[in-house]
Amino acid sequence: MTDYIIAIHGGAGTILKSLMTAEKEKLYKVALQDALDQGIKILRNGGSALDAVVHATSVLEDCPLFNAGKGSVFTHDGGHEMDASVMNGSDLKAGAVAGVRNIKNPVLHAKAVMNHSEHVFLFGAGAEEFARKERIEFESDEYFFEKCRYDQLLEIRDSDQVRLDHSNTKFGTVGAVARDVGGNLAAATSTGGMTNKRYGRVGDSPIIGAGTYANNNTCAVSCTGHGEYFIRSVVAYDVSCLMEYKGMTLQQACDEVVMKKLKNMDGEGGLIAIDKLANCSMVFNSEGMYRGFQDADGRNEIMIYKS
Amino acid sequence: MTDYIIAIHGGAGTILKSLMTAEKEKLYKVALQDALDQGIKILRNGGSALDAVVHATSVLEDCPLFNAGKGSVFTHDGGHEMDASVMNGSDLKAGAVAGVRNIKNPVLHAKAVMNHSEHVFLFGAGAEEFARKERIEFESDEYFFEKCRYDQLLEIRDSDQVRLDHSNTKFGTVGAVARDVGGNLAAATSTGGMTNKRYGRVGDSPIIGAGTYANNNTCAVSCTGHGEYFIRSVVAYDVSCLMEYKGMTLQQACDEVVMKKLKNMDGEGGLIAIDKLANCSMVFNSEGMYRGFQDADGRNEIMIYKS
Repeated sequence: MTDYIIAIHGGAGTILKSLMTAEKEKLYKVALQDALDQGIKILRNGGSALDAVVHATSVLEDCPLFNAGKGSVFTHDGGHEMDASVMNGSDLKAGAVAGVRNIKNPVLHAKAVMNHSEHVFLFGAGAEEFARKERIEFESDEYFFEKCRYDQLLEIRDSDQVRLDHSNTKFGTVGAVARDVGGNLAAATSTGGMTNKRYGRVGDSPIIGAGTYANNNTCAVSCTGHGEYFIRSVVAYDVSCLMEYKGMTLQQACDEVVMKKLKNMDGEGGLIAIDKLANCSMVFNSEGMYRGFQDADGRNEIMIYKS
Repeated sequence: MTDYIIAIHGGAGTILKSLMTAEKEKLYKVALQDALDQGIKILRNGGSALDAVVHATSVLEDCPLFNAGKGSVFTHDGGHEMDASVMNGSDLKAGAVAGVRNIKNPVLHAKAVMNHSEHVFLFGAGAEEFARKERIEFESDEYFFEKCRYDQLLEIRDSDQVRLDHSNTKFGTVGAVARDVGGNLAAATSTGGMTNKRYGRVGDSPIIGAGTYANNNTCAVSCTGHGEYFIRSVVAYDVSCLMEYKGMTLQQACDEVVMKKLKNMDGEGGLIAIDKLANCSMVFNSEGMYRGFQDADGRNEIMIYKS
């Protein structure tokens, strides 16, 4: 098979057409299209699924619309703590970072952990020390300053409340999954966390098995949602296990996990997934999910709301 | 059923009888027996599996023989960064901390995250801030100072080497799994990491699904081993999935994961597990694993080497 395909997401939540302007919707769609186009170009040229998902995710990190990289929300102390992870399906290698500050592209940082350290998961100041050694690009606080994000913090800073992206209703995460011409799968996920976040909270995005998983024998998965539920449900690996051990199709496995298991425990969110046969599933139990895919046959879809 | 049972471990690795003195062996066995006795007492009195595993793990944390809590190894900068997690099988609630310093019992800290926060996973200084709010007990650097551990650091401090507990060959972790009279399962894991650890490295111990997992429908699992491999293999949840989705027995599932999947990728280590029928498995692919179990029928076994 030579089918290649990439899918991306920009977060799930209460994304309603009634709350969206035509102009804003267009901005989101242009940004998603850009990430898809740059990702598929790598696959078309014979690049690896890993390179495609990492690059597509970095494009979304660079866009201030999404809560990851440049667009990350503010923590309680007025900074940005970002998490990211990446997994390669051919050798089950993985890399992840949590609670890192001033890293321009946390997904590149996670990839460096995978490729240039003997570890899988680094956090905080120690992870940043590794990033400097690896010449990962840092950015100033000004780079990450977005006025609307700062206003979101000021609204609730003096409360104990933590807030999801956009009006307490959107889970801000970006991610990508892909299959390359060689049949290799890969997944990447990146997030800026929750507004007014304290206590070094880590969600599912940097957790291999929860927010990210890839295995050439089954599928590649990137999640977005209420992270605590996704950690407790080991969501990404659960999709893989339902396929490998129970013989479910990709769509059946995604539906079982997102529409049944997560929904039954009020775990809001969704995921994108691609299997070894180049099937693609984009499933969510929330009102909407920024999402899209593009494949070798030229199919190209970008969606925001329930279809 | 009214069968209750608890199992514990104190780490796996190249633990050879030829390298052990009779005196040292006795010290380890006394410490393991103490943790088992205190854990089974809670279960005998009708206490929960959760309380039993947390308490048994805290007893091992208080013992300087094991690399967790008081006996934690030194990081590169001469401190101690500890990780722990806990999961309750009846409601799939979980709590975890990573990279925390000066916390007397990280497993109690993880339990507080589960019970008194809206989050599952906290790290570093933020996690410590939460611990102070929760009146979790802190200890001075002197409390954690063990001369043999410090000598281990001095040996390799100026190198880039990180070292496992004891002569580069033992994975220092402690943990417990239990089934209470009500049929509830729980698991807990705690570690002091690796000597000369840098860059905020996190292993599998605080990762739900990798180092720790519990689900009343299947089993409770606590792992010890080369953490990076355990994260990539989502070991603890894999045991549960093989039982739930493939119909394996607990022992079959543990053998499949530890003796086949992990061994094939050179992932050294082991795990302890108890299922909903009160079966117990203690499986490792290394030379030895400090381990033991005690049950309602008075069976009591403590082992170190391959049987």
